[in-house]
Amino acid sequence: MKAQFSYPLRIGVLGGGQLARMLCLDGAAAGFEMHVLCLSDQDPAAQVTAFWTQGNPHKQKDLNAFFKKVDVVTLESEFYSGDQLALAESTSQTPCFPEPAHVQILQDRLQQKNWLAQNHIPTSPFYKIDTNQELFHTFDKFPKGLVLKKRRGGYDGYGTFILKTEKDLKKFINNSPVIPNTFIAEAYVPFRRELAMMFFRSPQNQIVHYPLVQTEPKDNRLDVLMGPIQHKKQKDLIQKIKLALKKMNYVGAMGIELFDTGTELSVNEIAPRVHNSGHYSQAAMDRSQFVLHLQCVLDLHLSEPQLLCPHFVMTNLIGQGNSKLQIPTNLRGQLHWYGKVENKRGRKMGHINYIGSTQKSLRKLALTERKKLHL
Amino acid sequence: MKAQFSYPLRIGVLGGGQLARMLCLDGAAAGFEMHVLCLSDQDPAAQVTAFWTQGNPHKQKDLNAFFKKVDVVTLESEFYSGDQLALAESTSQTPCFPEPAHVQILQDRLQQKNWLAQNHIPTSPFYKIDTNQELFHTFDKFPKGLVLKKRRGGYDGYGTFILKTEKDLKKFINNSPVIPNTFIAEAYVPFRRELAMMFFRSPQNQIVHYPLVQTEPKDNRLDVLMGPIQHKKQKDLIQKIKLALKKMNYVGAMGIELFDTGTELSVNEIAPRVHNSGHYSQAAMDRSQFVLHLQCVLDLHLSEPQLLCPHFVMTNLIGQGNSKLQIPTNLRGQLHWYGKVENKRGRKMGHINYIGSTQKSLRKLALTERKKLHL
Repeated sequence: MKAQFSYPLRIGVLGGGQLARMLCLDGAAAGFEMHVLCLSDQDPAAQVTAFWTQGNPHKQKDLNAFFKKVDVVTLESEFYSGDQLALAESTSQTPCFPEPAHVQILQDRLQQKNWLAQNHIPTSPFYKIDTNQELFHTFDKFPKGLVLKKRRGGYDGYGTFILKTEKDLKKFINNSPVIPNTFIAEAYVPFRRELAMMFFRSPQNQIVHYPLVQTEPKDNRLDVLMGPIQHKKQKDLIQKIKLALKKMNYVGAMGIELFDTGTELSVNEIAPRVHNSGHYSQAAMDRSQFVLHLQCVLDLHLSEPQLLCPHFVMTNLIGQGNSKLQIPTNLRGQLHWYGKVENKRGRKMGHINYIGSTQKSLRKLALTERKKLHL
Repeated sequence: MKAQFSYPLRIGVLGGGQLARMLCLDGAAAGFEMHVLCLSDQDPAAQVTAFWTQGNPHKQKDLNAFFKKVDVVTLESEFYSGDQLALAESTSQTPCFPEPAHVQILQDRLQQKNWLAQNHIPTSPFYKIDTNQELFHTFDKFPKGLVLKKRRGGYDGYGTFILKTEKDLKKFINNSPVIPNTFIAEAYVPFRRELAMMFFRSPQNQIVHYPLVQTEPKDNRLDVLMGPIQHKKQKDLIQKIKLALKKMNYVGAMGIELFDTGTELSVNEIAPRVHNSGHYSQAAMDRSQFVLHLQCVLDLHLSEPQLLCPHFVMTNLIGQGNSKLQIPTNLRGQLHWYGKVENKRGRKMGHINYIGSTQKSLRKLALTERKKLHL
């Protein structure tokens, strides 16, 4: 991007969830007009801006109209159509970052895996699966088990099936036979722990990253996060990811989910956007992931991110259905609450950030405080 | 306050300037519905919420209607009528913090000085001035000069007149003779430097404060701020201010402006609200002044504020009238921009926060970066 932007600058965000909300808040702090395209004025992001547009980011017409309203577009989800985004971009001449073509590639787990493999980034073996027969064949190749994933639209465990035994396999096929162009099979990776890392790349090829962190899932959702973590293979991984981002000319934040097998770091999944595993940055880093993502989108200089504390912990607040949740009066952590109208079981309602000098005591405090919330 | 609040919680902010905007952003991060009462939808705070109410916080009717819409009210300026606020509060049964009675006292420099004196907080001698004759008499009592201030509505040097010579005095009276109930005269304090400090008190009598900072004014506006600063009298001052806040039952943020005479700390002025001299907290403290103020208003537990870095610097961005300001592409500081529609000369347009390990290098960087902005 060569053009330099002037105030007032209109940034369009596709989607109205918590990621869009937090993008809006940090964008507004920097003085940008944060425009949001989503269905309801009750959506988390729609509540925090005067520039809400009612519409569906999955509809070409709504995208086209929205792109024309703003100076640059970004997104909170990778599951928008790359073709639709590209058309809206060319019709409006409003740039979109990450680029529609990159969104298209990375939203498809098969193309994502190919991209990782082509860039020599360690990841588990995988096969395209289009028939039941292919699934059976692949199962035999993966003695430690197989992870069958929907290629598109999966998140937080939805669309992911772990098949360890022949019984698992047959049960799956009886329930839902394989249909073409829908699935990818990956070798199950026995791991010691799950890790994650955020990267950011600007058009002028500045690439910065946050520290490695440990993520603990519960019911397939991120539950507790701790950091920073050291791993002897991280330097090698960082180098490979940087090279891949440069080669692709990727622009924006990217969340990388990893398996630590004890000796290796293996990439599980990547998300071309700000990510739940980067929320701790609001408290622990000198610039949040939302600020850095917008700096990428606008091609502003990226300083090397600075960690502000020895250790940090983040807990997710997952809805349990309590409809009259009291505001916690005695919290030592830093609460972020997304303003979702309905507290549904399993829904991400908020998170709490902690910073301090010892990880163990922070973790204990975080879990104790969360327990008292009666979500 | 005994009642515990539940989500969704509606917080009403009176005024639509940058302080209200930053209150809204930090309140929204915590999941509150941030309602704003101000005149124009182009005001800084009106742009960052879906809950803007058009109205005038100086009009009883508009205040009454707004108070009825929300669960609790706070303000970005001390210059609203205490009587009007009290009436809106009692009509609506919606509490307002700081309390209207405290706003009424602290908005009047005479009552403010009386409050300081009654609480044995060091401050310069002062007299109520209602006639030209009283002004002449008082002038003779202050050999180092006299500072004449409007009792209400002054800020950033507006309403303040430094009279050092008889010529100054006569010139002032010729231009605008003294009218009753309008002025206070304070002894001019020869000072080495100006300092400032933020305090926060919750209804449950938790009182916390930020570190002492140095403020450098230019054209009567805060220009550059640096911290933390040590002063041998700070412990004594902190104790006195804490006692005074407790005795008053004050609730909310309070900005304290100080003169360092070399040996003493003397309070110049106080503001019962978040304050420009606390903006650095967005980068340098674990909780911003906006978060802490809202925690006071909601009677949430206040943790002891933690400084995240050895040193910090903040520069104000004062408008110079450039109508097409480019977004800086290569900034190492953290930019806050208020989204004001018009870049007027002398108007506060934004600020930049810096954190780091040496104050001298931060200050140099801050001034160099600001120069490049072409405000």
